[in-house]
Amino acid sequence: MMSGCSQYDLLLPRRVVFGWGRRNELGPLAAELGRRAFLVTGSRTLQASGTVEAVTAQLREAGVETVPIGQIAHEPEVQDVDATVARILEHRPGEGDLVIGLGGGSAIDLAKAVAALVTNRHGESVRDFLEGVGNGLTIDQPTLPFLAVPTTAGTGSEATKNAVISSYDPTFKKSLRSPRMVAAAVLIDPELTVTVPASVTAATGMDAITQLIESYISGRTQPFTRALCLEGLQRALPAIVTAVEQPTDRPAREAMSHAAFLSGMALANSGLGLAHGVAAALGVHCRTPHGIACAVMLPAALRVNRDVRRDDLAHLGRLLTDTDSNDPDVLADAFIEHIESICSRVGIPRTLSQLGVEREQIAAIVPSSHGNSMRGNPTQLTDDELTSLLEGML
Amino acid sequence: MMSGCSQYDLLLPRRVVFGWGRRNELGPLAAELGRRAFLVTGSRTLQASGTVEAVTAQLREAGVETVPIGQIAHEPEVQDVDATVARILEHRPGEGDLVIGLGGGSAIDLAKAVAALVTNRHGESVRDFLEGVGNGLTIDQPTLPFLAVPTTAGTGSEATKNAVISSYDPTFKKSLRSPRMVAAAVLIDPELTVTVPASVTAATGMDAITQLIESYISGRTQPFTRALCLEGLQRALPAIVTAVEQPTDRPAREAMSHAAFLSGMALANSGLGLAHGVAAALGVHCRTPHGIACAVMLPAALRVNRDVRRDDLAHLGRLLTDTDSNDPDVLADAFIEHIESICSRVGIPRTLSQLGVEREQIAAIVPSSHGNSMRGNPTQLTDDELTSLLEGML
Repeated sequence: MMSGCSQYDLLLPRRVVFGWGRRNELGPLAAELGRRAFLVTGSRTLQASGTVEAVTAQLREAGVETVPIGQIAHEPEVQDVDATVARILEHRPGEGDLVIGLGGGSAIDLAKAVAALVTNRHGESVRDFLEGVGNGLTIDQPTLPFLAVPTTAGTGSEATKNAVISSYDPTFKKSLRSPRMVAAAVLIDPELTVTVPASVTAATGMDAITQLIESYISGRTQPFTRALCLEGLQRALPAIVTAVEQPTDRPAREAMSHAAFLSGMALANSGLGLAHGVAAALGVHCRTPHGIACAVMLPAALRVNRDVRRDDLAHLGRLLTDTDSNDPDVLADAFIEHIESICSRVGIPRTLSQLGVEREQIAAIVPSSHGNSMRGNPTQLTDDELTSLLEGML
Repeated sequence: MMSGCSQYDLLLPRRVVFGWGRRNELGPLAAELGRRAFLVTGSRTLQASGTVEAVTAQLREAGVETVPIGQIAHEPEVQDVDATVARILEHRPGEGDLVIGLGGGSAIDLAKAVAALVTNRHGESVRDFLEGVGNGLTIDQPTLPFLAVPTTAGTGSEATKNAVISSYDPTFKKSLRSPRMVAAAVLIDPELTVTVPASVTAATGMDAITQLIESYISGRTQPFTRALCLEGLQRALPAIVTAVEQPTDRPAREAMSHAAFLSGMALANSGLGLAHGVAAALGVHCRTPHGIACAVMLPAALRVNRDVRRDDLAHLGRLLTDTDSNDPDVLADAFIEHIESICSRVGIPRTLSQLGVEREQIAAIVPSSHGNSMRGNPTQLTDDELTSLLEGML
């Protein structure tokens, strides 16, 4: 099936630098955006490995002063964002300042959110701006320039226009979203991902693959994003097992970082689907890490959409599996089985129980699943249908 | 052949709005970039059809003042750029100003060049900044925000980082090029192309197709641009004959505008090849319109690169022709024949003589062909080889 090209909107990062070892180019890239950088970093490994120190030295050499402003090792919560914004405000941010996010999706989302909020002071908390739970406030002023340096290959947050913010009391997981929030520049150095543990490589990699597939079959898909999805899937599917099993394999890491970036551009400009919808709910109710939740849900999401998207899935089966058939049913099923087999090889659980989900939680998970992502799903499920699906996965 | 994804750089327009009739959204899009717009327009048809007036009204409604600053119906020359810059400087441009280019590639290139030069005043003429013939000056200051609104489907200039500037005394055709010159926003309304004459639809459409193919097989190709090239060719090849023969056919016009935009993103981020190299020389020595020159040269360029890029051309043959063969030689040749047949159906001349090129001019054309585009050609030709090729096409 080829969708029409009658109408679309794109939001793209202006500048992208991709390549092994190219973190050495961070200084000049940042200097194009400002003279003082507020730096948000991810897990302590980056600190311990000397990466943060090296980055700061690079920036200094390019004439950019670094202000370390936050370090986060979990998916960002409302208070993390508000506290980080407050710390930046103490430095009187303005013209010539930028924000750098160096880390996994959590650090990049936190950095992206604060880059927007420090110049949009018409709310008291990030919560006021969140979809669904906020006061309807929007990011209507230009943000500080934001430079994303991902150290995992998965969320694609370096290319998206939203930051996912959680709360556990009350419980929600919602997006701060604005066209203004797309990174001004992205530096992707796949070498930064070689120290990522195998379980995180698997989960983040499956997150990227889920984004590529859900964007491809989404009800809001469009020709530009479909082209990126095909390219990303052609790279990621043959590479993910190698990346998990041989962490220093350079071509596999390059393929995964590239595919993750494409998945971010795709999702920022199309929709997602059921796996991401449920993953958000599993994150907030069961604290399931986002990538794992997506991967567990992906085969189920494909089966739910199998009939209405048979031809799309068959196209993926033709391109991406060895199936020697022209029968679209055979090809579509072969693609779903191929994904299941990859999930199994990289150690993704098959059931929700393995994630610690209990039957009593499903009543809360179902309504929380109907966020922005679920609206892109080609098949609309009722609450009863979703409940049955999830109960069947316990 | 699948090229690696080990290293690449991208420059992308931040915001893209694509759709039939969406010129009505110009006001709000421009208002995001500034409060006063210097407007450069293309041929008089736009003025006569009321499009310029409508655009000005749109802008006013969104709170953006329009300053008409230039109108151009030929490929921009050094004095056009310098004069337009001087006119803008009289208005003391600064913060809050933007430049809008509304027209074909000529108007967009002129607008793009002046948006860069009014904030880069360290040279006396655009010539000082041109590749090859300048004084080595570079666009090192941020440009005025640039918004591109193409009214033809072909050059892809709305997505590139360069403006092609000609001179006839002395004779050269060179680029003003900078990463800073990529449009901040692009509005593509395919409906604006329905009044384009058939010959221009053919020439500009073949320019886009040439860009997509040359970028795909270029020595500087990369996975992101290849994905865009495949998408663009899948749209443009089945649409161009219809667009030429039935000017108001909406899906054909949409396909061509979409493909042209993708061709611009591709060429801005990869290389081109022989057809574009020679086209630049034909433009300056024989005043051949750029699109026609590309189209005439495309089949020859494919034959020159046929052996070193056989597998790429076979892949295009498999995807884009009906050839029922798995033999890469058969498929590659079928693709080249398909392109020749399209050229013939849309009325592209087959010989250089038909363009008015004379044997004595070839000695001047050959050295002028070795610009930036030619360096992307997969096969490196000596001057003697290029001379023979061109003489054989008289």
